[in-house]
Amino acid sequence: MATPPLSPLAPAATPTLPAIAGVRLAAAAIGLKKNGGRDLMLAELAPGTTIAGALTRSLCPSAPVEWCRHALKGGKARAFVVNSGNANAFTGNAGDKTVSATVKAAVRLFDCRATEIFVASTGVIGQPVPPDHIAAALPKLSKSLSKSAWKAAAEAIRTTDTFAKMVTRKAKIGDSTVTINGIAKGSGMIAPDMATMLAFFFTDAKVPAGVLDEIVHRAVKRSFNCITVDGDTSTSDTVLFAATGAAKHPRVSNAGDKLLKPFRAAVEDAMVELAQLIVRDGEGAGKFVTIRVKGAMSSGAARRIGLSVANSPLVKTAIAGEDANWGRIVMAVGKAGERADRDRLGISIGGVPITSKGQIVEGYDETPVAAHMKGPEIDIEIDIALGRGSATVWTCDLTHRYIDINGSYRS
Amino acid sequence: MATPPLSPLAPAATPTLPAIAGVRLAAAAIGLKKNGGRDLMLAELAPGTTIAGALTRSLCPSAPVEWCRHALKGGKARAFVVNSGNANAFTGNAGDKTVSATVKAAVRLFDCRATEIFVASTGVIGQPVPPDHIAAALPKLSKSLSKSAWKAAAEAIRTTDTFAKMVTRKAKIGDSTVTINGIAKGSGMIAPDMATMLAFFFTDAKVPAGVLDEIVHRAVKRSFNCITVDGDTSTSDTVLFAATGAAKHPRVSNAGDKLLKPFRAAVEDAMVELAQLIVRDGEGAGKFVTIRVKGAMSSGAARRIGLSVANSPLVKTAIAGEDANWGRIVMAVGKAGERADRDRLGISIGGVPITSKGQIVEGYDETPVAAHMKGPEIDIEIDIALGRGSATVWTCDLTHRYIDINGSYRS
Repeated sequence: MATPPLSPLAPAATPTLPAIAGVRLAAAAIGLKKNGGRDLMLAELAPGTTIAGALTRSLCPSAPVEWCRHALKGGKARAFVVNSGNANAFTGNAGDKTVSATVKAAVRLFDCRATEIFVASTGVIGQPVPPDHIAAALPKLSKSLSKSAWKAAAEAIRTTDTFAKMVTRKAKIGDSTVTINGIAKGSGMIAPDMATMLAFFFTDAKVPAGVLDEIVHRAVKRSFNCITVDGDTSTSDTVLFAATGAAKHPRVSNAGDKLLKPFRAAVEDAMVELAQLIVRDGEGAGKFVTIRVKGAMSSGAARRIGLSVANSPLVKTAIAGEDANWGRIVMAVGKAGERADRDRLGISIGGVPITSKGQIVEGYDETPVAAHMKGPEIDIEIDIALGRGSATVWTCDLTHRYIDINGSYRS
Repeated sequence: MATPPLSPLAPAATPTLPAIAGVRLAAAAIGLKKNGGRDLMLAELAPGTTIAGALTRSLCPSAPVEWCRHALKGGKARAFVVNSGNANAFTGNAGDKTVSATVKAAVRLFDCRATEIFVASTGVIGQPVPPDHIAAALPKLSKSLSKSAWKAAAEAIRTTDTFAKMVTRKAKIGDSTVTINGIAKGSGMIAPDMATMLAFFFTDAKVPAGVLDEIVHRAVKRSFNCITVDGDTSTSDTVLFAATGAAKHPRVSNAGDKLLKPFRAAVEDAMVELAQLIVRDGEGAGKFVTIRVKGAMSSGAARRIGLSVANSPLVKTAIAGEDANWGRIVMAVGKAGERADRDRLGISIGGVPITSKGQIVEGYDETPVAAHMKGPEIDIEIDIALGRGSATVWTCDLTHRYIDINGSYRS
């Protein structure tokens, strides 16, 4: 498959990620990607690292996802082993054997428990990887572990992403400054695959697993769970967050601790940035769409309404066509299954109120809205005017390129 | 808007609908359609006609839908007034006034209760129709009522459907033969509208409203609720079923009555045929897709799994690309939210088993499946292998033409 052209929504620059005490990375090519590119990433985490994560809700998850679900219960991590080029999904017992052999090899290398090894895979589905293929590559790969290999790691987890996705943040915990780094791969695909989202975060903060879990789930809900490219859910979606504890700061023992406020904000901020980068690299994306919903009965309701709009093919094609078709937004609000009242609904596009209380605003002039629709960043605001729930979701338009990418025959 | 080319999936012939005792129809052009075509349909129903219906679940329904929801409670009908060219949706109080004036005019004409008049509208949304516009046209229109104007009626409710949709069935109730006629409009759109599905059925059977309601809801569940073009739900979806009672047959008083078995089957059959015609005229449709799900925990679960596959943009674009991408089917089963077990799942395409018990069938040869994918009718079978629930759903592929049709600017 030819390298796809850079997404028109790609950021102008990618950050250089600083080292994080307790994290070393390595990447290599082990023949899983047909193009011979890097397809294996190893992250070594210092002993005592705590872990939290969020996994796909798919009921047909991949073998690595099933392993991570089990391993997360331990709350500790010593390594991530992530490959691209093969999703190890729908591979039955063979898939479990590959995970098991990979975990065993990593256990030997890092002298830890099996549940401290986390695996993730993305790429072709339904084609088993020989059980020892990844395991055999680990000893050599571990010799090249380095504190600075962030870019190589981000590259190794890419499939057809048109750019590597990295983010870094600093946050104070008491008087100490901790770092948060994240890398992700998004909705690219390696035929015959589907879009899979993987994201890995690392911090030197010292946060108990239970506390980290709460912080991570809250942030995932407001970031990765608020983006959609096409509403499809991969068998392999995985977010893992490792905290090495190398930083010196006051002890924290609950997620609501005031001391953690800046950290919580930085985690959410980092996740939102990576989530948005994934949308900006959505298959065929030509426009980046922000949908703000307010006045819903709860924040969950607001998010479901926003996602209903974001996932509507009729809304997404209208945006691709630069058409301020607010009628389709009404339709998508109505089908969300959340409380809404036709006679209260307010819709604005590009900051221009179009409807209010169930009718077109008097004297509505489409000119500024039409101009807004021609830009690459589209803002939609929906006021349900019933309650106080709000949420923001992000998506992209549905274009001819999406169909070109996903309709082309696997070969 | 230019007349769209006939769908490649259109049936070779349309039936000629026979007269039904107690039903007269008329159609006219009253300027709601920009192209000057027929845009108003009136159906007169004999006094004593019983009625049942199913309406959109959208929480932002159109004014006519809200009226029908109220009127259905009466169980009787004397007339349907249906216009195309304007959906009378999201028109606030103005929309209610138009419905009210239309109903009043029909009440004067047919000397009946308000709740015996049913209205439906499809077309542009957000643009109020002057309150008396439809009402004023009714007296003249009623003079042209005829027993044979089925085709004109089917034409008058079309928007951008590429062909008129009609169906007719006979069924025995005891020794008598009753007729069922149906007309529908499907997922065409008049800019700036969304796809709206309207279907109207008429029979001379004598069926109490409560019994009819049960039969209709059961049949809708297995027909109109099993089709999807793009997963979007209109503000205006309406199915109405009128039984004039002109036929002489033994009295029936419950939906489970053995006497009604052939009638129930004919109703379902007629609805399935119209529902399939709507899919065959889906925007941009190039392939008609039948998805049979078995082995689910219930028939509802089977239907939700089928619709998850049918609505998946990744599955739909793969079909457009003639790609037997079964991995995406696994993904869509997994995201349906219904019980499924990766290690039991069986998938066949075109009758060829591809996976079984969570793995590719040994020696799987894609050649016959690839040939099947090139045809216009695609058959997918999914065996969840957990329970006894089954369902069949129908959809079409997601093509460049869908984007052309829906992404083009309203003008």
